[in-house]
Amino acid sequence: MNRKTLDAEILSVGTELLRGHVTNTDARDLSRLLAQTGIKVRWHTVVGDEPCRLRESVEIAKGRADIIITTGGLGPTCDDLTKEVLAEAFSLPLVRNEAEAAGLYEYIRYGSAYTPNNQSQALLPAGCTVFHNDWGTAPGCAFEAQGKLVLMLPGPPKECLPMFERYGLPLLKKLAPACIVSHSLNIFGLGESAVDEMFREEMNAMQNPGMAPYAKECDCLLQLTAEAESEEAAEALLRPVLARVRERLGDYVYGEDVESLEEALLALLKESPATFATAESCTGGDIARRFTELPGASAFFLGGVVSYTNEVKAGVLGVDRALIEKYGAVSEPVARAMAERARALTGADYAISVTGLAGPDGDGVNEVGTVFVGLAAAEKSWVRELHLGAFRTRSFIRRMAGNVAFDMLRRRISGLPVME
Amino acid sequence: MNRKTLDAEILSVGTELLRGHVTNTDARDLSRLLAQTGIKVRWHTVVGDEPCRLRESVEIAKGRADIIITTGGLGPTCDDLTKEVLAEAFSLPLVRNEAEAAGLYEYIRYGSAYTPNNQSQALLPAGCTVFHNDWGTAPGCAFEAQGKLVLMLPGPPKECLPMFERYGLPLLKKLAPACIVSHSLNIFGLGESAVDEMFREEMNAMQNPGMAPYAKECDCLLQLTAEAESEEAAEALLRPVLARVRERLGDYVYGEDVESLEEALLALLKESPATFATAESCTGGDIARRFTELPGASAFFLGGVVSYTNEVKAGVLGVDRALIEKYGAVSEPVARAMAERARALTGADYAISVTGLAGPDGDGVNEVGTVFVGLAAAEKSWVRELHLGAFRTRSFIRRMAGNVAFDMLRRRISGLPVME
Repeated sequence: MNRKTLDAEILSVGTELLRGHVTNTDARDLSRLLAQTGIKVRWHTVVGDEPCRLRESVEIAKGRADIIITTGGLGPTCDDLTKEVLAEAFSLPLVRNEAEAAGLYEYIRYGSAYTPNNQSQALLPAGCTVFHNDWGTAPGCAFEAQGKLVLMLPGPPKECLPMFERYGLPLLKKLAPACIVSHSLNIFGLGESAVDEMFREEMNAMQNPGMAPYAKECDCLLQLTAEAESEEAAEALLRPVLARVRERLGDYVYGEDVESLEEALLALLKESPATFATAESCTGGDIARRFTELPGASAFFLGGVVSYTNEVKAGVLGVDRALIEKYGAVSEPVARAMAERARALTGADYAISVTGLAGPDGDGVNEVGTVFVGLAAAEKSWVRELHLGAFRTRSFIRRMAGNVAFDMLRRRISGLPVME
Repeated sequence: MNRKTLDAEILSVGTELLRGHVTNTDARDLSRLLAQTGIKVRWHTVVGDEPCRLRESVEIAKGRADIIITTGGLGPTCDDLTKEVLAEAFSLPLVRNEAEAAGLYEYIRYGSAYTPNNQSQALLPAGCTVFHNDWGTAPGCAFEAQGKLVLMLPGPPKECLPMFERYGLPLLKKLAPACIVSHSLNIFGLGESAVDEMFREEMNAMQNPGMAPYAKECDCLLQLTAEAESEEAAEALLRPVLARVRERLGDYVYGEDVESLEEALLALLKESPATFATAESCTGGDIARRFTELPGASAFFLGGVVSYTNEVKAGVLGVDRALIEKYGAVSEPVARAMAERARALTGADYAISVTGLAGPDGDGVNEVGTVFVGLAAAEKSWVRELHLGAFRTRSFIRRMAGNVAFDMLRRRISGLPVME
C-alpha cells in the first residue's frame, strides 16, 4: 500500500493542565478513538490560556499536521480563548450562532445558574459545522481552511468524548485514507520486556500487520495493527497472526481488546454465569470498586466485606479469632478463611479475598508487598502468596493484588489451573 | 519584581501515549511539582518513538524553552530512543557508565528476568549528572548544553516521580529566579463557574498574589499564587488574601492544599480522632477504596460492607427485609438503616452509607442519578437525597456520592451542620 497518511495533532488548551491540576484524559481518549480511522495521531500538545503561546502552537500544528483537534477553552470563564485564536489563525471571523444562543439559555435556565459570561459561547467561526453540545453548554465545531481540517471540542471529558463520537468520528472516518484495524491481546503474568524478547525477531520482520507490546501498570498488551482497503481485508491479515501469537502466549492471554482483568472476567461471566463476593483487607474495597465500575456487574457480584481491622474480620466476616491470633492477619490461613467466610455469608458461588501489607508501614512480621490472595469455591479453596517487593507503591500493590484475584477467578471459571 | 522567568517544556516520548493506551500522568505530576519552583511549565508535548519526529520536537523545545524535561524512552525495549536523539541534538556522545552498568545487572539479577536488551540502559550522554534509579532499572540524567538545561527521566510514573523528587527538584530549585508559593482552597458544594463569578472583579484587579479557580471532577479549587524574594515574603503576601477569601467562602472550603475530601477528612481525624465504617451499595466499595488509598487510614477506618444486592443488605448488614420491601433499596429509610447497621456491626463512632442508581440502567422507580447518602452517629442519623441528573456518567455519580458522604462526616466532626 502506498498512500499518504493523514497526520493529526491534538492541541489541548488550559493552564490547569500545565499546573497539573487536571489530567489530560481527553488526548488519551481521543487518540484511542482515532485509532479506528486511518488517521495517525503524531503529537499531543498542551498550552496554557495565553493567546500568544496558543497562536504559536497553532502555527506549529498548521505546519506539520493535516488535522488539528483542539480541546478546551470553549467555556464561559474569562480565560477561554481557543475559538478566538483559531479563527484568527485561519482568517475567519467569529459570528453569533442564533440557534446555539437560544439553546444555550434553555440549558442554563434548566440545568444550572445563569451567569452572564455564558454569552460568548454562541460565537463560532464563520462557515463552520456546529457540534451542538447535549452534555453541557459550550458548542464545538469543525471547519476546513488553508488545506487543514480543524475540530474544536470542549475540555470536560464528559462533553468532549460524546461530542467527538457523535460528530467528529463520522466526519474523520470519511477522510480516512485506508482502513486500519487493531487488536490487542491482553496479557497477565508476563512483563512487557519478556513479551518483547519473545517476539522480537518476528516483530522486526513484520510490516503489515505490525506488532508491538505495551506496558500497563500491572499487566501488558501486545497490539497487532493491519492496514488494508477494507475492514474485512484488514481482519483477514490479522486473524492468522493473532491466532499464532495467542497460541504461543497460552494462558497468559486473559482477553482480546479489553481494558482490564475485571472487564475480561465480566465478559466470561456473561458466557458462564456464576456469582461471586469479596473479602478485602489491604485492597480496602478496590476489588469490589473495580468490578462494580462496569455496567452489568450486579448480575454476578453480590457484595463483600472490607475487613480492614481484625475486629471486622472476626465480627462481621466471622473469621475465627484464634486463627488470626495464631497466624496473624497477613497469612495463608486467614486469606483462606476470609474467602470461605465471604462465600458462606453471601451465598455466592465463589469468593475472592486479599490480606496483605500495601505499605508504606509494615506490621513488624511481613515485608511490605507481602500479600495473600484467596479463592473459595464449593469444593476447594486456593491461596496464592505474593511478594511484590517493598519498593513498590501502595497503589501498585493494591492493583496487582486485585489483578491476581481476578485472574484466579478467571482461571477457575475458564477451567484452567488456578495456580500458575 | 522584574526578572526573566524560566520556561520549561515537558516532552514525553512514547507511541503508547499517542495511541491512548497510557495516560500522561508524568506531565501532570511533574507540572505540579514544578509549581514549587519559579519555573513556569509552558508546554507539554507528546511525540512517538520515531527518531525523526522526536528530533523535530526537540528542536522546537530548544527554540522556546529554557528547560526541557523528557519522560520515557530510556528503557530496554527496542523502540527506546530518547537518549540517542537528545544526545545527538545537543552534540554529545553517549558513553557507557560503568557504575550504572554494574548496578543494573545487580538489580536485574535480583528483581526480574535478565534480558540482553537491558544493556543499552547504561549508555548516557557524556558529562551528564546521572540520576541513579532506585525504583527500576533505567537511569536518568541531567546535562547543560547550548544554554539549555535538559533532564531525562524514565516513563513509568513509579520511577519518574521519585527520581524527579530526589534529583530533579533540588537541582531546579537552585535555578529558580524567585520564590513562588501557591496555596489552594479546596471547595465542595460550589462550582468553578460560581466561584469565578464570585471573585471575578477581585481576580481581574489582582497581580501578585494572583488568583484563579480550577474545576476538578466533582469539586473545585481556588488557587492563590505569590512571587517574592523569599518563601516568607511570598507567604506574607498570601496569608491576608487567603484569610479574606476563605472567610467569604465559609463552610464550602473543606481544606487547604489537599487533593480530595478524603484527604481533608483524614487530616481532620488526626486532630479529632474518631472511627468510622461504610455501607455501600451503588458506590460498590469506592468510598472504602478512596479512604484506604491514604496511608494512615487504618487508624480511623474499621471496615465496611459492600451490599450490592438486597440479600447482602439484609443477610450481612442486617437491614430489615420489610424496610427494603416497603420503601425499595434506593430510599431514605434504607440509607439510614444501612448507616446505622454498619455502625452497630463494626462498633465505629460513625458510619456513612450510600444507596442509589449510578446507571446506565434504572430500577423502574427512581431516575438514574438518584442517590441517598446516610450518616449515623451515636445520637442521631442524617440522610441526604441527591438528584445528580440522568445525563451524568456512572463514574461521576459514584464519585459525587462519595464526596457527599465524606463531606457529611467532615461537617459532623468539625461541628458544622451536617446538612447544608
